[in-house]
Amino acid sequence: MAEIVRFGVSLNKELLEKFDSLIRERNYSNRSEAIRDLIRDEFVKKEWIEGDDVAGAITLIYDHHRKDLLSKITDIQHNYQKIIISTQHIHLDHDNCLEIIAVRGNPEQVQRLADTLKSIKGVKHGTLSMSSTGKDMV
Amino acid sequence: MAEIVRFGVSLNKELLEKFDSLIRERNYSNRSEAIRDLIRDEFVKKEWIEGDDVAGAITLIYDHHRKDLLSKITDIQHNYQKIIISTQHIHLDHDNCLEIIAVRGNPEQVQRLADTLKSIKGVKHGTLSMSSTGKDMV
Amino acid sequence: MAEIVRFGVSLNKELLEKFDSLIRERNYSNRSEAIRDLIRDEFVKKEWIEGDDVAGAITLIYDHHRKDLLSKITDIQHNYQKIIISTQHIHLDHDNCLEIIAVRGNPEQVQRLADTLKSIKGVKHGTLSMSSTGKDMV
Amino acid sequence: MAEIVRFGVSLNKELLEKFDSLIRERNYSNRSEAIRDLIRDEFVKKEWIEGDDVAGAITLIYDHHRKDLLSKITDIQHNYQKIIISTQHIHLDHDNCLEIIAVRGNPEQVQRLADTLKSIKGVKHGTLSMSSTGKDMV
Repeated sequence: MAEIVRFGVSLNKELLEKFDSLIRERNYSNRSEAIRDLIRDEFVKKEWIEGDDVAGAITLIYDHHRKDLLSKITDIQHNYQKIIISTQHIHLDHDNCLEIIAVRGNPEQVQRLADTLKSIKGVKHGTLSMSSTGKDMV
Repeated sequence: MAEIVRFGVSLNKELLEKFDSLIRERNYSNRSEAIRDLIRDEFVKKEWIEGDDVAGAITLIYDHHRKDLLSKITDIQHNYQKIIISTQHIHLDHDNCLEIIAVRGNPEQVQRLADTLKSIKGVKHGTLSMSSTGKDMV
Repeated sequence: MAEIVRFGVSLNKELLEKFDSLIRERNYSNRSEAIRDLIRDEFVKKEWIEGDDVAGAITLIYDHHRKDLLSKITDIQHNYQKIIISTQHIHLDHDNCLEIIAVRGNPEQVQRLADTLKSIKGVKHGTLSMSSTGKDMV
Repeated sequence: MAEIVRFGVSLNKELLEKFDSLIRERNYSNRSEAIRDLIRDEFVKKEWIEGDDVAGAITLIYDHHRKDLLSKITDIQHNYQKIIISTQHIHLDHDNCLEIIAVRGNPEQVQRLADTLKSIKGVKHGTLSMSSTGKDMV
């Protein structure tokens, strides 16, 4: 079981009131949880620069009618199968697909996979969500 | 069938050489595709500020052992079922889950859902990928 | 004199150790100051979306040899003189100038000024630093 | 004199119409200039990751009444005088100052200076504008 410690933060009363209103707006139940999120966000940014095992998601928007597009996207994913966990495919309308690829591995390889998929002709938009494996973020 | 038009871009030779090297690095097959991606990125940013129908993905990292966490995450998703398309769940290790929620709808509501899920105690990290439905991005 | 209040934050021991190492790296003298900075960053982001009085800096890189460029940049600044406080001009080399414009006012107007300056032919790069007037951030 | 080259970009008519409306909104006089800006933005991001000579601006908001604050800020700037070009100081109101430090040099050192200044107790907010020396961006 993880050991919980407690420390004090001092700040100006007015700033605290604003913080309380901000965290209510974002549905936090208490200040500790909101501050833990701010701290963890900093770590995840750091993991993507210095770490070697991150997790995240690549999203792609494309028109599946486009010739050879599906096979190209699949071929590339097979080349990177070590860092791809699974793929979710959504039919947004008659033409457009949203494909979400869950990834885990070295941050540079994940970035390269995202760049490569995004560069395919017919892929209209691509994003890379940078998250964490959670294992160092108790 | 979409009508394709062509226009000329003039730029300094040295800048073009650098651009060619950048797009090779990112695996683009030609300049047009790279420039279309830069243009489409600008539109998607705009859609999230001014538009009313966007698509994307929310990622969550959490420890599924945490009491009541799974039911809280599920309850909230049901409250937002109109903008949630589907959910992909990955067991990263004995403790940590990566949950990826495909979303589509009003950008403010999608943002609120992401904030609400992220604020839950036990959710270690959350991201929101801002993409597009593709329908206005032929 | 501003009233200082204190509240407790509980978090996992391991996460705290990582946080301590991160803030040492960034030269913080104590946890409170690091957490205040994380909190204040959130407020400033909010002020640029919802507020009506922000401060910041616009940077421009341009080649001053370019015909009419200096007069265009100056003309535009005069049209926005209500939100421009002062300008710092640096000769980076024989050709390139770095101009830094201190701005204060309505966030949309500041953004429009930055967009307008950046769009001038001959301006090679432009940035907008989003900061605060400090007055609501005791 | 720099050599200007020209190349063609093909894209969907509807996307081009949207692009034309976006660049009018941002005051661009023609498509080439807008596309050059998108290309140059990519290079500047790359320079801050891989380059060794960048330029930019650090902004600080602080209350000058705070004991020893001015001398701390000045001391640190002297330690980094090799990468600091000049400083602009603005009195925002009775208490708050906006200080804008023009910087040029190695991107890691510039980042470290920004982190160090931001971490000082009494500095309410800090930003780092990432721009370029312009010399490789004809």
